[in-house]
Amino acid sequence: MTAGIYAAKREMKTLLIEKGLPGGYMLLTNSIENYPGFLHISGKDLSGKMEEQMKNAGVEILGADATKIIVEGKIKKVETSEGERQCKSIILAVGGGHKKLEAKGEKEFTGRGVSYCATCDAPFYKGKAVAVIGGGNSAISDALYISDVAKKTYLIHRREALRAEEAKSRELKNKGVEILLNTEVDEILGDRFVNAIKLTDKSSGEAKKLRLDGVFISIGTVPHSELARDAGIHLDEKHYIRVDGNQETNVEGVFAAGDVTGGVLQIATAVGEGCIAALSAYKHVKKPYWS
Amino acid sequence: MTAGIYAAKREMKTLLIEKGLPGGYMLLTNSIENYPGFLHISGKDLSGKMEEQMKNAGVEILGADATKIIVEGKIKKVETSEGERQCKSIILAVGGGHKKLEAKGEKEFTGRGVSYCATCDAPFYKGKAVAVIGGGNSAISDALYISDVAKKTYLIHRREALRAEEAKSRELKNKGVEILLNTEVDEILGDRFVNAIKLTDKSSGEAKKLRLDGVFISIGTVPHSELARDAGIHLDEKHYIRVDGNQETNVEGVFAAGDVTGGVLQIATAVGEGCIAALSAYKHVKKPYWS
Repeated sequence: MTAGIYAAKREMKTLLIEKGLPGGYMLLTNSIENYPGFLHISGKDLSGKMEEQMKNAGVEILGADATKIIVEGKIKKVETSEGERQCKSIILAVGGGHKKLEAKGEKEFTGRGVSYCATCDAPFYKGKAVAVIGGGNSAISDALYISDVAKKTYLIHRREALRAEEAKSRELKNKGVEILLNTEVDEILGDRFVNAIKLTDKSSGEAKKLRLDGVFISIGTVPHSELARDAGIHLDEKHYIRVDGNQETNVEGVFAAGDVTGGVLQIATAVGEGCIAALSAYKHVKKPYWS
Repeated sequence: MTAGIYAAKREMKTLLIEKGLPGGYMLLTNSIENYPGFLHISGKDLSGKMEEQMKNAGVEILGADATKIIVEGKIKKVETSEGERQCKSIILAVGGGHKKLEAKGEKEFTGRGVSYCATCDAPFYKGKAVAVIGGGNSAISDALYISDVAKKTYLIHRREALRAEEAKSRELKNKGVEILLNTEVDEILGDRFVNAIKLTDKSSGEAKKLRLDGVFISIGTVPHSELARDAGIHLDEKHYIRVDGNQETNVEGVFAAGDVTGGVLQIATAVGEGCIAALSAYKHVKKPYWS
């Protein structure tokens, strides 16, 4: 959306192609406290503000699924579920998706006790026992949020320490979240719905079974870089799109910004990258051969 | 301030050293319309919100002038007008200052008709004739703002075209701002106060004199990189601090973010850089040899 705001303000005809609601992963965040300018704001509200600003700047929105990009030549093409669009420059701000735990039972119980979105599904676990899997900031935020609703909340992390802000780790303890470190999830068990998980304590080698009603998997995102890869755009070893300091990919006129390019995966950095991508696209579009 | 927010949220003891008000150059901007999340907000209000957020996160503010940094060794030192401070990591977010036109009379009449801050000084020119010098977005914003107050506003730029967003260029014309392109300012004239400027039309070579009451110089900023340079930190050919993808300088544990590192000089990018700098500083501070 930042790329859209900057592109439209430079009077470029700007189309945002989005199959869902603009905002992506941000929409799933319950409370954002580190985006400068807002002491705290929900992802939904911040997305809404950015969307309004983007429309106000003149960005047109196409509700469609982009299925293929063709980047050879000066006129680039985007194939979508609503037909083909042509343009002089493409900015890929396609974000990432939920990383899978790859545990036995995970796929089977997805939607029946296994969730990747606390904001969406926590209310269903009122008075129940829930485990959050992960050790980063989003896992901790999820656990804090869920502990307001659930009767018992576990936070299970395979490493020896959480990767989170210390203040949040303290808050977890204050809220009675039970933290299991150095613990691997071996299997998610259930009948029609999840009713337990099988764990291994990696320090002792001991296996145990934990009775619970829900499992929230919060172990990060993977970049949505398939469209880019199929178009011949270079990715790094973790499948993030490679960009230079101008957010340009290996294909001239094709830029990328936000989570799909890796890094620290913050809104603050996505915004900076979107701005640079749009200003770089402007330079590309205004090059002499277009006039 | 973004670096402060992120550093404090990681439970690092964080000190912001600032001789004026936090916000720097942003404070001088009348209306910001391209920072994602706000349709429009004054620089003063956005700075205020970030300052509140930073204090809330636990950042301590020292009102002092940093005069020297000593970056050798693990414990770094900052000498200030309020004494020396020691730390494990330094983030230089020192911004930039106003670029001087280097025209005859400029220095002499500064504060007596020559200004570098429209937001501060425009109200003094009600019903008068004013020239804004420059061709970028901040020059155009200044001209638009001044045209609401002044009787006559000129925008004078030495190049053949403005570097601004097209929408803003159109707005200038709608507001009756007279644009003089390809025009060099040779001298600022006056008695006690400015009363005219001497110009050269570079296409015809013709010299002319323009009667007016004020001159706003809005030709950009220069990085405040002297502190860094004197400490042995590498600068580029335009005197911006060189940083890598982690915002780290050539000295381990010393980072830089925002206008002092160059680039597109937007709030959106400064925020992204500040975030990365703080997370990199965190990694540095938490390295084994500190524990």
